[in-house]
Amino acid sequence: MRYELYYWPDIQGRGEFIRLALEESGARYVDVARQGKRGMAAMMKILGDKRSRRPPFAPPFLRAGKTVIAQTANILHFLGPRLKLSPRDEAGRLWAHQLQLTITDLVVEIHDTHHPVTSWLYYEEQKPAAKRRTRDFWRYRVPKFLGYFERLLARSGGNYLLGRNLSYVDLSLFQIVEGLRYAFPKRMKKFERKVPRVIALHARIRRRPRIAAYMASERRIAVSQWGIYRYFKELDQ
Amino acid sequence: MRYELYYWPDIQGRGEFIRLALEESGARYVDVARQGKRGMAAMMKILGDKRSRRPPFAPPFLRAGKTVIAQTANILHFLGPRLKLSPRDEAGRLWAHQLQLTITDLVVEIHDTHHPVTSWLYYEEQKPAAKRRTRDFWRYRVPKFLGYFERLLARSGGNYLLGRNLSYVDLSLFQIVEGLRYAFPKRMKKFERKVPRVIALHARIRRRPRIAAYMASERRIAVSQWGIYRYFKELDQ
Repeated sequence: MRYELYYWPDIQGRGEFIRLALEESGARYVDVARQGKRGMAAMMKILGDKRSRRPPFAPPFLRAGKTVIAQTANILHFLGPRLKLSPRDEAGRLWAHQLQLTITDLVVEIHDTHHPVTSWLYYEEQKPAAKRRTRDFWRYRVPKFLGYFERLLARSGGNYLLGRNLSYVDLSLFQIVEGLRYAFPKRMKKFERKVPRVIALHARIRRRPRIAAYMASERRIAVSQWGIYRYFKELDQ
Repeated sequence: MRYELYYWPDIQGRGEFIRLALEESGARYVDVARQGKRGMAAMMKILGDKRSRRPPFAPPFLRAGKTVIAQTANILHFLGPRLKLSPRDEAGRLWAHQLQLTITDLVVEIHDTHHPVTSWLYYEEQKPAAKRRTRDFWRYRVPKFLGYFERLLARSGGNYLLGRNLSYVDLSLFQIVEGLRYAFPKRMKKFERKVPRVIALHARIRRRPRIAAYMASERRIAVSQWGIYRYFKELDQ
């Protein structure tokens, strides 16, 4: 199977959780909208298709044969058993998906640190609100979310969130750590000692040959000020 | 199967999407935390369980035999085929789930209209931000989300989002309309003419015998100023 991933070409964003799963498993895939103007046009055509009975609401979406699937966590739920990145039994698959949905919630909260009021204002126009939101995010939310994953790693019976086997959820948690280090280098440095297992998991994944090769390639889009994670000095104090 | 639903006892909140599915299908279930102090203690015990290998991050969660499942959309994904409220084939199930995840995204945005900056401030402390957020929510987001569901209904080939058969996604969209009417009666009244199929779907579901009986019962928690949907006159202009 050759998968087609459709996502905005200039940001890691939500598409990155899917790229990491495809890369780690060595799957054949095309990152369609990154294949020049035609790729972007192909994505917009699917989004605007007036006849499709199962149109995606927004990117990312994945085409696998005739099936088009949207919503990041749903795509990973679909890919999991196919890429050998989730258990095959129903209870195990639901558990992996449940954790992925918790990461989905965290991603929204990370984005909202720099744009709490509305996405139709620039960051500079909502700076006081962003500061307040970021304070509470680091005081209450990061400890709650990352503390949860830390406890899961302590209990899983293996090196990974689900136990002895790597899953797409581990790859997504890796991406969370990557993003928090970019957006909040000082805060994250201070916080990491509280979640040593999460940090060790990140390092373990960073060393995996396919992930290391991917990170060094041009397929990995550089972090920027337009994605989920953005660096603003005044939010990182 | 007798299901156990665990959710905060005083709000409709995210638990309501699950209650509606259980009620419509006539399933046997207990709304545990609403069974007095002991029920609430049982919920907190599961949340605080230090030994569980698959602990929920937050309510709602569902116990079905020995399985404990969290995340609203994940619970509905699990219940769907069991309650005959989703297709059984994989592609159909994923499509239903994809729509439910889109509703999940909308629910966050509805909540954030009254608490954009942070949940650790009262509404009164973030009123200007709430006004701005609400303006963009009604200008851009409601038309995008409800317009999407309107188009799906036009194309589905039946009275429901997935076609001729009722699914849990229809019940969730019903609850979105209920909530928007409560929180934004004026704005919603004006907007409804743009999504006649969504409104007709709401009416159709409201008339279903089990839903009508549920809505008239004490099992349906009254709307309040503590849930996802809250009414503030100044946000409804």
